[in-house]
Amino acid sequence: MTSQSGEEDDESRSPDGDRLARGRARLAEITGRSGAEVMAALGEVAPDFARYIFEFGYGDIYSRPGLDLRTRMLATVAGLVALGHARRELEVHIGSALNVGASREEVVEVIMQMALYAGFPAALDALLVAKEVFAARDAAPAPEDAGRSDGT
Amino acid sequence: MTSQSGEEDDESRSPDGDRLARGRARLAEITGRSGAEVMAALGEVAPDFARYIFEFGYGDIYSRPGLDLRTRMLATVAGLVALGHARRELEVHIGSALNVGASREEVVEVIMQMALYAGFPAALDALLVAKEVFAARDAAPAPEDAGRSDGT
Amino acid sequence: MTSQSGEEDDESRSPDGDRLARGRARLAEITGRSGAEVMAALGEVAPDFARYIFEFGYGDIYSRPGLDLRTRMLATVAGLVALGHARRELEVHIGSALNVGASREEVVEVIMQMALYAGFPAALDALLVAKEVFAARDAAPAPEDAGRSDGT
Amino acid sequence: MTSQSGEEDDESRSPDGDRLARGRARLAEITGRSGAEVMAALGEVAPDFARYIFEFGYGDIYSRPGLDLRTRMLATVAGLVALGHARRELEVHIGSALNVGASREEVVEVIMQMALYAGFPAALDALLVAKEVFAARDAAPAPEDAGRSDGT
Amino acid sequence: MTSQSGEEDDESRSPDGDRLARGRARLAEITGRSGAEVMAALGEVAPDFARYIFEFGYGDIYSRPGLDLRTRMLATVAGLVALGHARRELEVHIGSALNVGASREEVVEVIMQMALYAGFPAALDALLVAKEVFAARDAAPAPEDAGRSDGT
Amino acid sequence: MTSQSGEEDDESRSPDGDRLARGRARLAEITGRSGAEVMAALGEVAPDFARYIFEFGYGDIYSRPGLDLRTRMLATVAGLVALGHARRELEVHIGSALNVGASREEVVEVIMQMALYAGFPAALDALLVAKEVFAARDAAPAPEDAGRSDGT
Repeated sequence: MTSQSGEEDDESRSPDGDRLARGRARLAEITGRSGAEVMAALGEVAPDFARYIFEFGYGDIYSRPGLDLRTRMLATVAGLVALGHARRELEVHIGSALNVGASREEVVEVIMQMALYAGFPAALDALLVAKEVFAARDAAPAPEDAGRSDGT
Repeated sequence: MTSQSGEEDDESRSPDGDRLARGRARLAEITGRSGAEVMAALGEVAPDFARYIFEFGYGDIYSRPGLDLRTRMLATVAGLVALGHARRELEVHIGSALNVGASREEVVEVIMQMALYAGFPAALDALLVAKEVFAARDAAPAPEDAGRSDGT
Repeated sequence: MTSQSGEEDDESRSPDGDRLARGRARLAEITGRSGAEVMAALGEVAPDFARYIFEFGYGDIYSRPGLDLRTRMLATVAGLVALGHARRELEVHIGSALNVGASREEVVEVIMQMALYAGFPAALDALLVAKEVFAARDAAPAPEDAGRSDGT
Repeated sequence: MTSQSGEEDDESRSPDGDRLARGRARLAEITGRSGAEVMAALGEVAPDFARYIFEFGYGDIYSRPGLDLRTRMLATVAGLVALGHARRELEVHIGSALNVGASREEVVEVIMQMALYAGFPAALDALLVAKEVFAARDAAPAPEDAGRSDGT
Repeated sequence: MTSQSGEEDDESRSPDGDRLARGRARLAEITGRSGAEVMAALGEVAPDFARYIFEFGYGDIYSRPGLDLRTRMLATVAGLVALGHARRELEVHIGSALNVGASREEVVEVIMQMALYAGFPAALDALLVAKEVFAARDAAPAPEDAGRSDGT
Repeated sequence: MTSQSGEEDDESRSPDGDRLARGRARLAEITGRSGAEVMAALGEVAPDFARYIFEFGYGDIYSRPGLDLRTRMLATVAGLVALGHARRELEVHIGSALNVGASREEVVEVIMQMALYAGFPAALDALLVAKEVFAARDAAPAPEDAGRSDGT
């Protein structure tokens, strides 16, 4: 599983152009969304912010070796539940966790566990987001769910 | 690795006495601290709170199957970094993550990743806590570190 | 008023089955909602989470003696305002506070007071939630409001 | 620049009636909303809270000399982004910042910068709020935008 | 008990001088600290901030009728636990709650209950603060504890 | 004042090596600390995190045109006060704000204003940090304070 994240290692100090391209590819791989969608959402308000998401978020952080992507995304779900207010990102990254190999059960376990640290309201709200994400996938399965629809 | 968390499954609706005993054992396994230490810290102020930590925290949540303990503790570290204020718990559970099989590198990766979601100050403060935990372990290695002192 | 919370005292270490039944009854008494509603909201995503809400939340914590229910629910409103993001729970527990004997004026006082500790936006948002809860009760009075509709 | 905030200085310990009038005027100047709108939103739930917003928020704090209003409102935007949950206030005060002389670019810069301190989700959510505020102004320009529509 | 908070009612729109004097008296009554101590802590950095604490915090909010002081201070403890980071204020207001008639047991109940809403770390940290406050009072009893040392 | 932040504009998409060098220079200019100090604090725990602080924090964000540095640092102070838990960063950036031209009075105004949005405890704690920073500067004036010691 670490092979997923290890391959970019020797590029990790590459020039900006590479970070941008690597980040856009990584974002698509993890979230199932294209960089174009992110840029469209931000519109003309802050195009550089989209670039930072690609370059720093996905080109730097999510391209690091040292931790497999499945654990990374489950940790991200945990962090977003603890924040409490990041509903939009939570929805995206519950999907990301599923995209990179976590099961629905694992996502639910991580969220429930956060009740201990961030309280029941944060966990309950996140479980209702997970319920929506799961229902949307059942209604329109993502391609990457195809091979494991019985296992998640 | 999932064998660590799967064994209590058929006890999961057991009576309270079992939850308490199971929780105390689980707490010791994960944190390397005894229930007596937790109770001593709380003193006579709130003995029932210690009981809830054992019963609900460790007897219920951390005894659930469905997610391996290493991932659980890395998710907990992520959540505690995102909270921002839980320094004491963060110190304990960085240790817990190491106790249940996470490497130092993995702990550091999870913390750094939280800079994306909770900001650089939360991540930086947590890295300094990790530095202290690692240094304390180097000075007085926990028994469970013995076999992997070179690898973490 | 303390008689409401004192009667379960000698059951407080009872087996799990009792915690579950006691918690469901307590939840209904406080929130005016049935356990079935809570379970339906969570659906098949996390049925155990509903069980923890019943057992730990209402069977353990809200069944404790030592503090009357009216003060407990006003403290809960205060805590939820301070969290800032728990709109759903705030709406439920503004209702709970009214259900267990707090007046509308007391709920409003607690929320306004939180402006000091959590800032004006958190308090203002919570006052607008209270306004909605009060309006819904005026439109469809809960049975327990019957005897005090003029006084709250 | 300090002339904007300096003129009330010698009234700063004036009686309550003056604080109220000064606060209502200041609120209108900054937010472009009338005190009547604030009171209408709160309705009969908490009229005193509206008074505190006028008296303490605008009559005391926002009437202080020592910092120009443009910087004050950009700092407020920064604080609201960092809070994470204050969407309603953020929308109002992105508008306030524009009303008192900040440019759209400056608002966007402050929000983007908060990604460093409060994380990308808080900043991203705030940028989408800014996008909405800017679009609403383009659709129905505020009078005070008239003279600088090309510069912001 | 409501007589404690009801007496200032008809002064509630009094001039600033009265708010200041009333606030300083109220602060002393509730916290057991003098306004001079608060001002000394702030030193020359922000004397007006001390004035706002007196005038708005204690002269306005804590002088309102409509909720008894004991419930107010227990709600404040709840809110401060939920905030997570307000250790200094929490220490002061655990003392305030005791000063205005809450028992130690009630303070502990409110804190434990917050584990449900803000998580176990926030509640555990707060219990350890309570333990310190109680120990300091045992070592040097406040005068107001004299008459009820057996009852709290 | 905008000349401070405008000069790097045409380098803003430069290769990584430039981002790193630019970021280290910018960090030193703003915080008065060297990159070596930051790296030393992190030690061997997370050297890449220091690199991200330089590259993304200072090389990207704090090298952007569009907002003068004085306003940027006052906005950062506001955001850190609102976070509540970032004491270490707050101390550094109160100093940064002074370094780039903000007066002590302006720093205090921004902090006091945050009482409205994040509550009095967050603002009070931050004022006490400011008091310490100011006292340390009085004891050992930074070179850049030399020319304006009477004015801040």
